[in-house]
Amino acid sequence: MTSQNPIFIPGPTNIPEVLRKAVDIPTVDHRSPLFAKILHPALDGVKKVMKTGRAEIIVFPSTGTGGWEAAITNTLSPGDKVLATRNGVFSHRWIDMCQRHGLDVVVVAQQWGDGIPADRLAEILAADKSHEIKAVLATHNETATGVRSDIAAVRGALDAAGHPAMLFVDGVSSIGSMDFRMDEWGVDIAVTGSQKGFMLPPGLAIVGLSPKAMESVADGRLPRTFFDVRDMISNYSAGGFPYTPPAGLLNGLKTATEMLLDEGLENVFARHRRIAEGVRRAVDAWELHLCAMRPELYSDTVSAIRVPDGFDANRIVAHALNAYGVSFGTGLMELAGKVFRIGHLGSLTEVMALSGIATAEMAMADLGLAVRLGSGVAAAQEHFRLGAAYARQKAA
Amino acid sequence: MTSQNPIFIPGPTNIPEVLRKAVDIPTVDHRSPLFAKILHPALDGVKKVMKTGRAEIIVFPSTGTGGWEAAITNTLSPGDKVLATRNGVFSHRWIDMCQRHGLDVVVVAQQWGDGIPADRLAEILAADKSHEIKAVLATHNETATGVRSDIAAVRGALDAAGHPAMLFVDGVSSIGSMDFRMDEWGVDIAVTGSQKGFMLPPGLAIVGLSPKAMESVADGRLPRTFFDVRDMISNYSAGGFPYTPPAGLLNGLKTATEMLLDEGLENVFARHRRIAEGVRRAVDAWELHLCAMRPELYSDTVSAIRVPDGFDANRIVAHALNAYGVSFGTGLMELAGKVFRIGHLGSLTEVMALSGIATAEMAMADLGLAVRLGSGVAAAQEHFRLGAAYARQKAA
Amino acid sequence: MTSQNPIFIPGPTNIPEVLRKAVDIPTVDHRSPLFAKILHPALDGVKKVMKTGRAEIIVFPSTGTGGWEAAITNTLSPGDKVLATRNGVFSHRWIDMCQRHGLDVVVVAQQWGDGIPADRLAEILAADKSHEIKAVLATHNETATGVRSDIAAVRGALDAAGHPAMLFVDGVSSIGSMDFRMDEWGVDIAVTGSQKGFMLPPGLAIVGLSPKAMESVADGRLPRTFFDVRDMISNYSAGGFPYTPPAGLLNGLKTATEMLLDEGLENVFARHRRIAEGVRRAVDAWELHLCAMRPELYSDTVSAIRVPDGFDANRIVAHALNAYGVSFGTGLMELAGKVFRIGHLGSLTEVMALSGIATAEMAMADLGLAVRLGSGVAAAQEHFRLGAAYARQKAA
Amino acid sequence: MTSQNPIFIPGPTNIPEVLRKAVDIPTVDHRSPLFAKILHPALDGVKKVMKTGRAEIIVFPSTGTGGWEAAITNTLSPGDKVLATRNGVFSHRWIDMCQRHGLDVVVVAQQWGDGIPADRLAEILAADKSHEIKAVLATHNETATGVRSDIAAVRGALDAAGHPAMLFVDGVSSIGSMDFRMDEWGVDIAVTGSQKGFMLPPGLAIVGLSPKAMESVADGRLPRTFFDVRDMISNYSAGGFPYTPPAGLLNGLKTATEMLLDEGLENVFARHRRIAEGVRRAVDAWELHLCAMRPELYSDTVSAIRVPDGFDANRIVAHALNAYGVSFGTGLMELAGKVFRIGHLGSLTEVMALSGIATAEMAMADLGLAVRLGSGVAAAQEHFRLGAAYARQKAA
Repeated sequence: MTSQNPIFIPGPTNIPEVLRKAVDIPTVDHRSPLFAKILHPALDGVKKVMKTGRAEIIVFPSTGTGGWEAAITNTLSPGDKVLATRNGVFSHRWIDMCQRHGLDVVVVAQQWGDGIPADRLAEILAADKSHEIKAVLATHNETATGVRSDIAAVRGALDAAGHPAMLFVDGVSSIGSMDFRMDEWGVDIAVTGSQKGFMLPPGLAIVGLSPKAMESVADGRLPRTFFDVRDMISNYSAGGFPYTPPAGLLNGLKTATEMLLDEGLENVFARHRRIAEGVRRAVDAWELHLCAMRPELYSDTVSAIRVPDGFDANRIVAHALNAYGVSFGTGLMELAGKVFRIGHLGSLTEVMALSGIATAEMAMADLGLAVRLGSGVAAAQEHFRLGAAYARQKAA
Repeated sequence: MTSQNPIFIPGPTNIPEVLRKAVDIPTVDHRSPLFAKILHPALDGVKKVMKTGRAEIIVFPSTGTGGWEAAITNTLSPGDKVLATRNGVFSHRWIDMCQRHGLDVVVVAQQWGDGIPADRLAEILAADKSHEIKAVLATHNETATGVRSDIAAVRGALDAAGHPAMLFVDGVSSIGSMDFRMDEWGVDIAVTGSQKGFMLPPGLAIVGLSPKAMESVADGRLPRTFFDVRDMISNYSAGGFPYTPPAGLLNGLKTATEMLLDEGLENVFARHRRIAEGVRRAVDAWELHLCAMRPELYSDTVSAIRVPDGFDANRIVAHALNAYGVSFGTGLMELAGKVFRIGHLGSLTEVMALSGIATAEMAMADLGLAVRLGSGVAAAQEHFRLGAAYARQKAA
Repeated sequence: MTSQNPIFIPGPTNIPEVLRKAVDIPTVDHRSPLFAKILHPALDGVKKVMKTGRAEIIVFPSTGTGGWEAAITNTLSPGDKVLATRNGVFSHRWIDMCQRHGLDVVVVAQQWGDGIPADRLAEILAADKSHEIKAVLATHNETATGVRSDIAAVRGALDAAGHPAMLFVDGVSSIGSMDFRMDEWGVDIAVTGSQKGFMLPPGLAIVGLSPKAMESVADGRLPRTFFDVRDMISNYSAGGFPYTPPAGLLNGLKTATEMLLDEGLENVFARHRRIAEGVRRAVDAWELHLCAMRPELYSDTVSAIRVPDGFDANRIVAHALNAYGVSFGTGLMELAGKVFRIGHLGSLTEVMALSGIATAEMAMADLGLAVRLGSGVAAAQEHFRLGAAYARQKAA
Repeated sequence: MTSQNPIFIPGPTNIPEVLRKAVDIPTVDHRSPLFAKILHPALDGVKKVMKTGRAEIIVFPSTGTGGWEAAITNTLSPGDKVLATRNGVFSHRWIDMCQRHGLDVVVVAQQWGDGIPADRLAEILAADKSHEIKAVLATHNETATGVRSDIAAVRGALDAAGHPAMLFVDGVSSIGSMDFRMDEWGVDIAVTGSQKGFMLPPGLAIVGLSPKAMESVADGRLPRTFFDVRDMISNYSAGGFPYTPPAGLLNGLKTATEMLLDEGLENVFARHRRIAEGVRRAVDAWELHLCAMRPELYSDTVSAIRVPDGFDANRIVAHALNAYGVSFGTGLMELAGKVFRIGHLGSLTEVMALSGIATAEMAMADLGLAVRLGSGVAAAQEHFRLGAAYARQKAA
């Protein structure tokens, strides 16, 4: 626990010093006026990061998974039909959750490594003349495969079909790191957590609900109390919380949104893209391939890297940790052993990224893969130099 | 936010330095072996604090409210009958949650300030020949009224009736501060949070389930995923977690149980009793009365103090905060304006308690109540001196 | 180390949370431009706290004692005559240091509990026709006796005699807590540390030098390198430091001056006076006496309290620590066993002060002194209530 | 201040998390028994790190420079002759300090990049028949040039000449990182600081004095108070300190020695050697040269790297900071512009080192130096892989 090596899992991220300190505060009297001075700026900051002017932001002491549950239990009822694409572990789990809550999920199975097929959704929605489908569930960034789907295209599918279903988006590993346009894309519920783009410790589910989603809250007949949006809303307006709020994490959220907005969202996104592209150049140099099937699917927060057939990718992850004290992500479920993942989101710098790339090279070489030492580093360096040059030009 | 005055709300408590540091750690790779070295000692420590050798301990990134929801959604089914006493806000809220989840709650309404009427429960249970009642819900310590109920007596009521219902206990503001004997009392589900007896920031629901409760998990037909005990159990055994765990808080929980067990649970309880008794002596000296109706009901973690009729107790709380920077608890729901509450749980010392008593005196005097300055302090000092003398004798 | 009881030694003080965090920062590259952004605002802030527009501020990684040494070694030469009053341990030690450095100290011995006798100094200075006396050394606040001397009167003595000697003032336990007017009082060297009015951990000697003192630096023939003001000045101007600077503490100093100036120096002084007066009321209520002989000598940062003859005051200090976990100050040198000291400087609040007063009462009562429990607390409460009332009026 | 890039200056080092926390503690009553429980283990730990059983360890709230001053002012007298080698900035500064304190320094000027010439010292000592030389001053590791001298050989020179002079060693950038054998090498005074091998913030001068040095303390006629060893010794034995001690830093020192001893000093040294060798392999790959003239002089804590003639090395340092947020060390005095320095001491890992090497490559390439990207990284990786392999074998 004492090494200062960066961590390269796709969340929780490395926590910036200033956020460590924002979270680590003495006990706040959550029934005093002080609490509202933490909560409301945090909520307002999240709105800006989600690019929404009209959504309600609700924060639960929970995780992204709890955010999903809040999304469906507040707005849907047993037997409701929802449409979802399964293209990785996290989309799979959300589908599973829906089924466990008695929803009727129309599953579009997609190859893992591919994105959400908006055209296929459009067909299904067009065919749903009676509008039985109440919601479309979309995972913006599949953390398991490093695939970013096109949410605007999903919105387009809904619009093309003139379908009134709500659009629920899992933005857990995208919001705050990659462009997310809640209002423009007509997202009805957006879900994320504290430990990804917001660079905080885990412990918050952050949910945005459009006016349309808020209307549906009254109709939802799935039981819920802890995740009940109505209790939250009524307490927030009085500067309160329906139960004991995690004031430290909320103070961290307030500070994290300030950090992101001070840097400028577009700069934050460009930084993620630059670092991600450096990692991708390294993968190319290693003559390996991403799980993501096409460049337009490449995620800027996590890269899932396929290893040669017959080689167990888990060995890379285990060896990097044991020999070099560096954590990468393993492949999950059907990708177990087939990919390893490099998380590159949050406050990572180019310099930190290079140490991750260098470590991956050593680990692969140690295990006999034909990876030339320094090759991925050099490819990433070349890219990062250009990025630094560009940043210097821009500042000048 | 910069004053170092202690806080006297009945949770979250003042956080000891060592726990601040245990929580505030760099990101842990929760899929590495490191995580199990945090999780398992934390779970084992909780077992000892709950005095159970046979329960499973499950920890959710949530709050006590989430713990209640986990208790009922994992073990009960819509329409199930449960028996519960309403004698304060928190028991009231648990009942409300049950109703919102479609349970049929047999409510025993009790005066706020009174405890759970075990004899009345015994009658109801004896009358339930067909054993329709699946669970008895008991709030060990009503935080709203400062009333501790006798859980052993509730168990006695079940046993006397030969009734197989499970016993669910809300120990949120008792566990870790007052004696709690999960196994001896035959508690099937015990619920608490991180921010009371464990002295941590909010963010963890901590739930203990007896073997009998674990058996019922398979039968529960209330939908749940985030709070599903089965997912937790299957992941724990592999050193994992079904979603991103709050590793810092869990490390805090590990450390908190070490602190409590190092001090010795009986010493911890005696310390809470000593400080609580000091507060009660002060209340006597002020010629005020506790909300708790009889000495055997007095809570050692929070005292709700009735103010003279016609006086708004909220003024004391607001004034203490504004004029002296000290937080007390307000009265809730039907006690709003009628009581103010002094929380005295967690790492509070006699010395800190005296500053709270002194502040309450100043606030009451400022607002025109006939409280003699120094009177409550002197009464508490007298008691604390005896306690210190006893502690010295014992150490010698 | 885990209790959150306040500390009542006359420095180091309780450290405010925000200063804990300002000091605890990752390593700063002290040869980068970042360092100047810490150093220069810290120096500017100190100037304002010392009320000087013309002094140079020099900060050494050292303590107040080091600051004294810097004062004399930079400006004086072996055999130089200085005039100093000995009225407590700290003035005694400064004299001793001068003698160990080969200075010829004209000592005015004053009863411990009394202040600097400006009239006596005036006589000596007037008699020194040949101006052999190069500097007058004055301890603004004798931490050992709780006596504040009148520095303006010392300046008056110099002026009355038309004497060119420099005026060196030990403001270790006054600057930042009590009014200190470097320019107005014609102070040539002012010395303090980080751990008193600045509320930081120990580790910084903070020295202000008037233009006149700076001129004398060239002439000083006492050897010094670590404490050489010339090396400091030449490095500061380039944003540097002659050796590795304690960047965290300097960042703390920057933040501490911001805190003091944000509150307003006069408000800071009034707060110290209010709390000190509360402690003095308690001493009266206990029918004990301060070491300080007259009200105009009373220190607002520390009170030395005489105990009845024949009683060993150290027992109070030891007992308060052992039985109640609270630290007070002992009597030093000739006051050992005769007084105990309550430090009341820094970020102490009225509420924290009351817990110290209450603890002192318990300790004295435990040891058989005829102190009525609650009596001192009540006297202080009465005073603090007026203070709070006044603060409310002012804010309204 | 928010990036988590490692720092590559040759001290202060990156501070391990556990030491950040050990230093950042609430105020300690330094006159209570608690203080001795911090101080004495810290002193004992330092003894073990210095490999001495007989020395007194004295810790001043100061820096290494203060440690030098303590060494000479406590043991020498004006006019005393000392013998010293000047082979870099830090040896130069110590000589300058001696001269400013009126000592007569016999200076052996050595090329910067070379070590202490033990044979030359032997000649001078042999020629000093009347034993006028009272002390030999030796800089174990010249931080400015990355040169480690052979202290055992210096001892050999003294012994060969049968000369009774004391041996004073500046171990600021060696102790705790490279082998240092105070007793075996007959070192009379060893000096270091908190911010190098002990990985703490700056603020402590740590001085070890042999019995022979302690004897000379009585005879030293240089004035000193702050740095007086006699005051320290007499206070330490009572668990005290002659002035306000920096308790947090001392607690950090206690913890740092525990960390070093737990890892095992030989393992600590091997780790530094391994990382240093990786950096040296990178320098080779870049076709550049170290300032250190021969392999036996190579420092394991800092490498000073010569740049091609005509190129200003400061540009690399400035560019790395501006473009990539990474701090390296500049060349000092006569090496200014000719070298840049990579510090590789303290808690640095191989992985962190690689990010520094990669950054240096980018910076040099950006500035037009003929450095192939990835070349130095690959050379270091190759070395680190062997090291990791060896560590795995050893653990198996």
